[in-house]
Amino acid sequence: MIYADNAATTRPSEAAIQAMLPCFRTNYGNPSSLHGLGQSAGESLFAARETIARCLNCQSREITFTSGGSEADNQAIRSAAAWGAKNGKRHILSTAFEHHAVLRPLEELAQRGFEVELLDVSRGHTVTAAQVEAALRPDTCLVSVTYANNEIGSIQPIGEIGAVCRQRGVLFHTDAVQAVGHLPIDVQAENIDYLSLSAHKFHGPKGIGALYCRQGAPLSSLILGGAQERGRRAGTENLPAIAGMATALDECCAHLEENRRKVSALRDRLIQGLCRIPHSALNGDPENRLPGNVSLCFEGVESESLLILLDQRGICAGAGAACASGSLEPSHVLLAIGRPMAVAHGALRLSLSEYNTSEEVDEILRVVPEVVERLRAMSPVWRELTEGKRPFLLAP
Amino acid sequence: MIYADNAATTRPSEAAIQAMLPCFRTNYGNPSSLHGLGQSAGESLFAARETIARCLNCQSREITFTSGGSEADNQAIRSAAAWGAKNGKRHILSTAFEHHAVLRPLEELAQRGFEVELLDVSRGHTVTAAQVEAALRPDTCLVSVTYANNEIGSIQPIGEIGAVCRQRGVLFHTDAVQAVGHLPIDVQAENIDYLSLSAHKFHGPKGIGALYCRQGAPLSSLILGGAQERGRRAGTENLPAIAGMATALDECCAHLEENRRKVSALRDRLIQGLCRIPHSALNGDPENRLPGNVSLCFEGVESESLLILLDQRGICAGAGAACASGSLEPSHVLLAIGRPMAVAHGALRLSLSEYNTSEEVDEILRVVPEVVERLRAMSPVWRELTEGKRPFLLAP
Repeated sequence: MIYADNAATTRPSEAAIQAMLPCFRTNYGNPSSLHGLGQSAGESLFAARETIARCLNCQSREITFTSGGSEADNQAIRSAAAWGAKNGKRHILSTAFEHHAVLRPLEELAQRGFEVELLDVSRGHTVTAAQVEAALRPDTCLVSVTYANNEIGSIQPIGEIGAVCRQRGVLFHTDAVQAVGHLPIDVQAENIDYLSLSAHKFHGPKGIGALYCRQGAPLSSLILGGAQERGRRAGTENLPAIAGMATALDECCAHLEENRRKVSALRDRLIQGLCRIPHSALNGDPENRLPGNVSLCFEGVESESLLILLDQRGICAGAGAACASGSLEPSHVLLAIGRPMAVAHGALRLSLSEYNTSEEVDEILRVVPEVVERLRAMSPVWRELTEGKRPFLLAP
Repeated sequence: MIYADNAATTRPSEAAIQAMLPCFRTNYGNPSSLHGLGQSAGESLFAARETIARCLNCQSREITFTSGGSEADNQAIRSAAAWGAKNGKRHILSTAFEHHAVLRPLEELAQRGFEVELLDVSRGHTVTAAQVEAALRPDTCLVSVTYANNEIGSIQPIGEIGAVCRQRGVLFHTDAVQAVGHLPIDVQAENIDYLSLSAHKFHGPKGIGALYCRQGAPLSSLILGGAQERGRRAGTENLPAIAGMATALDECCAHLEENRRKVSALRDRLIQGLCRIPHSALNGDPENRLPGNVSLCFEGVESESLLILLDQRGICAGAGAACASGSLEPSHVLLAIGRPMAVAHGALRLSLSEYNTSEEVDEILRVVPEVVERLRAMSPVWRELTEGKRPFLLAP
């Protein structure tokens, strides 16, 4: 089996698993307990927080552990909005291709009287700092821009946007769920106020993530109860998963450049090979993209059938976000970058990690063109296209 | 080391760990992915949900997985309150000895115009269905009563309260975090609309829990984003922890009566032995309490010193809720049952599980009286008490 759906989730590293096991078997205390077992858990929690902070270049007290990226996104957005509401600032800037864990809370805020403006990303499949700057208003309380898009892999100019926001005194959140562990990130240098991350996207366990919140930026609790996480997130700390996350991130950061080079090379070979398929198009920026992201549209093909046939040939791939699958609507991301509906329906996302090999890329390059050809041969739409009954939307 | 702090957290069972490991190493797909690996994860998720539902006697679609008990409590309360606000019902009944994961959301609602009434629990260290019935109003939207108190172990008359609420058409939530896996629970027979549970209280992993919500009861999402959990909880499903939770609960339910008998016998021996210490008092009902809960107050003793000395003697114990430790305030639960401040400061909670042995109970019965005596010998308060300079509050 070739696993090429690492943007959906990754296989936990053996080191991460080994970091979790003692927390299940011996170091199982509640970090809030006074006794030695609790204190030992507390020390492991402290060490994990230090590791995460070091990888992002922040202070450990700026890290709040959450149950994952969605919770971190929700908490950051609601915190900034609550602050905005108190200060008469009810304008929020974001982009049209954010993850639903950003868009849905923004929709909720829009229903509660906030003005949410989603910037256009159709030019170059990215947003620019100039766009952000032009759209900022005196009543803007928050700018939220993904670090790198989860479907098409485009890396956004976070440092430039951060500089603009900081200069104008506007809070800046980035959903970095796809970026952390894969790209070098420095929350201070990039002037980030809030950053969301999720362990299972970088070979850590599921069910754990973190929210970086710059000291001084407003942060309110989403889950109320006990005083864990300095009162900013109630609930017994999930130490096994936190320890696994810290180990996985530490591994990723230690090998970041090496992995990035290796995975980018695999990615580029895939992109070059698959773009030779007629009437296909690469989604996202060809250069400025996540090391592991390959996202294409094939005209006259339905994503779902493509994924099923690839699965039968031993290749695990995705279309858009796994979170949105099961839905028949085309990806909002692909529509946002300007893909017509008919093209957006034929999306394929292959997402690689450093666990993938060159041989696997060879196999994908053999299989995908065959499968696309087979699906087109069966497709009434494809027949209409080739018979000139409807126009091709993508170049041959 | 004797671990007697199972109300704070438990050691995961080896079966639960073994259920998690394949989800880390081989069955690591995203349950929302279309490919075989994702589908396999989806099937495991389905099976785990069925198991949890069977243990509570509900339908699997009535189970929503959450990151733990606090999140489940928050979601239930906010869902019922949102429904209440829409229907002009802004009165909520609860008790004075709920967990903070219930009390804090209620405080937030009180700030937003809800009328929150906390029922007295000082008589018999419990609340009665008659109290609930007498306090219900036409504008009551929710009754929230813990299944069994986390500090003093008192089991509440949930079936009776459920019957009253159902008859009066009022939503009924119970925080059953301390009860699930330890007491027989039947959400249908007990007329429960919402029930919160947390895996790490019954030898499952940390960071995972569930909210039972009766079909037809209002449920809104706390974490917004992807369409997981039928749109009621966004975020990639934490399959390893969910599988571990299901295995742990299944084990507990299969051995429930046997464990209950064994643990209750250990508990009763501890209670009998420790109540012989002069000027001590049992907190909670002597009979109608959690199988593993032993909660006492010792006059002239400070909990923190007691826990530290017990830890030095190899006994891990707690005072009140681990979630509240680090705070110098006395337990709101002990104050709610009518303990005076001076007595509430001298609390000890020993919480047992089926992993504890009779020999461990012997050792605790040897050590606790010695440690209490030693602390009293050093205590200026104790000297004043014995010299008659201040009155004893507890009987000799």
